[in-house]
Amino acid sequence: MPSDTNTSLILSERPSGPIVKGKTFSLKSSPAPTEADLKDGQVLLETLYISFDPAMRGWLDDRRSYLPPVQIGETMRALTVSRVLASKSPKFSSGTIVTAPSGIQEIAIMPDSQVEKAYDLPQGGKLTDLLGVLGSTGLTAFFGMTKIGQPKPGDTVVVSAAAGATGSVAAQIAKIAGARVVGIAGGEAKCRWLKEELGLDEALDYKAPDFKQKFKEATPKFVDVYFDNVGGEILDLAMARAAQFSRFVMCGGISQYNSEDKKGPGASFFNVITQRIKMQGFIVFDYINEYDVARKQLAQWLAEGKLKRKETVVKGGVRSAEEAFEWLFTGRNTGKLMVEVKGAEEGARL
Amino acid sequence: MPSDTNTSLILSERPSGPIVKGKTFSLKSSPAPTEADLKDGQVLLETLYISFDPAMRGWLDDRRSYLPPVQIGETMRALTVSRVLASKSPKFSSGTIVTAPSGIQEIAIMPDSQVEKAYDLPQGGKLTDLLGVLGSTGLTAFFGMTKIGQPKPGDTVVVSAAAGATGSVAAQIAKIAGARVVGIAGGEAKCRWLKEELGLDEALDYKAPDFKQKFKEATPKFVDVYFDNVGGEILDLAMARAAQFSRFVMCGGISQYNSEDKKGPGASFFNVITQRIKMQGFIVFDYINEYDVARKQLAQWLAEGKLKRKETVVKGGVRSAEEAFEWLFTGRNTGKLMVEVKGAEEGARL
Repeated sequence: MPSDTNTSLILSERPSGPIVKGKTFSLKSSPAPTEADLKDGQVLLETLYISFDPAMRGWLDDRRSYLPPVQIGETMRALTVSRVLASKSPKFSSGTIVTAPSGIQEIAIMPDSQVEKAYDLPQGGKLTDLLGVLGSTGLTAFFGMTKIGQPKPGDTVVVSAAAGATGSVAAQIAKIAGARVVGIAGGEAKCRWLKEELGLDEALDYKAPDFKQKFKEATPKFVDVYFDNVGGEILDLAMARAAQFSRFVMCGGISQYNSEDKKGPGASFFNVITQRIKMQGFIVFDYINEYDVARKQLAQWLAEGKLKRKETVVKGGVRSAEEAFEWLFTGRNTGKLMVEVKGAEEGARL
Repeated sequence: MPSDTNTSLILSERPSGPIVKGKTFSLKSSPAPTEADLKDGQVLLETLYISFDPAMRGWLDDRRSYLPPVQIGETMRALTVSRVLASKSPKFSSGTIVTAPSGIQEIAIMPDSQVEKAYDLPQGGKLTDLLGVLGSTGLTAFFGMTKIGQPKPGDTVVVSAAAGATGSVAAQIAKIAGARVVGIAGGEAKCRWLKEELGLDEALDYKAPDFKQKFKEATPKFVDVYFDNVGGEILDLAMARAAQFSRFVMCGGISQYNSEDKKGPGASFFNVITQRIKMQGFIVFDYINEYDVARKQLAQWLAEGKLKRKETVVKGGVRSAEEAFEWLFTGRNTGKLMVEVKGAEEGARL
């Protein structure tokens, strides 16, 4: 039974730097909407899992971007795996598992146009994969790597934040394509996972004192594809090591999201000309018409064991959302970070 | 009659910042090579005009680039229009006008593989066009704008250093393509030329105190194509005004060439992702197989009066080379900057 109360995370104040616990957001309890509140074409959703992604920090800034910023007083935007509790849409029936940008809250009313039926999970697939490897981060990795990076056998591919939800999938796709893959991550445990579990050729700890030297040593033939999730100094380093006609997949810049004094790359930027780098930014939904094909491929790799994933699930529901943001921006998660609200046990199974 | 002496400009010391008069280079007088010095496959060239281009500053830095750096003690590399004085190559006969990277000197011996017969000038064409609109800067503009920029009718195209040799051609090509073109240049005189002579829609003086505001006003629908010759702050500004899916043609970065503390773009760099910018660097000779087609098009536009050009010719031969560099990096030239050595009067006519 759904609760009578809906707990939601509300944006109270735009942060200029990092999200401030107890200040940026506030928790709100309000009577949960019910079937009686539905208008035609709407569905009532019960949140099972909420996706936590670095890009969410960008949604808090009041600047021109690919989506309008979340407004003060609004529920924080987030992707979720949810279950349909009630429906006034011919497209969804009660009990269906869906994904939707229904926000950091327990119960939501959404127009059916924004709701998507859960993709059929492959063998070994889990409900949480709908947010990870088969969800927006997996798709982001897929399109960025295949459309922009286009690694060829023998290419040197470097992926930053390689132990993250997007980076770990991007790195494995490059391996599947036959490239030599160097992953960058924070800390020994993540690096071990990248080499031993994901089979990357090299894993570099950016927190190590000799990181720059190691980066150079790991790229003796320079960098053909750089998949960037971090921006800043590591991007500059990758530009310094760029091969001629290299492709830079501009996916994210987590090192700069919380900075009040945002920086681009530095002195190595000029290599964009001398080495003829193609740097291209993208947002996953630029490729929305190709989601099905991409998911099918990702699901197949997952079933075949070619694609491995890890997830970090924060328990405790909406009330633990602020903690989840802290984990995200201090790099405590490996793989996909989620908050479990109802979770698979209580939520419906596929 | 060629002189018995060859005056050449020698690299004495690598500059860390700007070229220092009397220090970076030195003049050298040596006995001029003669026909007797030629080996099979070589030609003896007499320099008529020497091309001066911002990219030459980059050739002085000892770093990985698209060409090896000029070595200390070597004649400074430069493109020239020259006349064949004597030939031991079946490809060239005495008296032929050619272009070659024969350096800042009066007389040169070159292998025929590096020498190119002058392109047949169209009606109204001049010998100096072989270095300008029909030479490397014109070709640079052509390939950058057509291959990477790809302006469509109605696009807003911004060109920096628009009164320079490359920028002025790039801007006009965008006009020919039907785009709305905004040129950026230093000073009122250049801006007037851009609007009144070249017919650009807007010309902005980057030295004006309200430049940033004017840039914003001149790009109400944002920037679809940015052709960059300058880097630094103006690039950052263009990124701030980038339209979704815009193309950034990374051609040059004159604002950074002389800087000891080179910078990339700043806080606006992140728009590469949010606005899905494609930034691509190139070097003209990446397109060497398409030079003929490009020159034919440029020559036709020139003959039709669709392409206008200006040139700044420094008289005084090799001895005025250091002065020419000064002009180049203080923006004193409009259009193509050259040093006349023998010039059209004394050199052979086509």
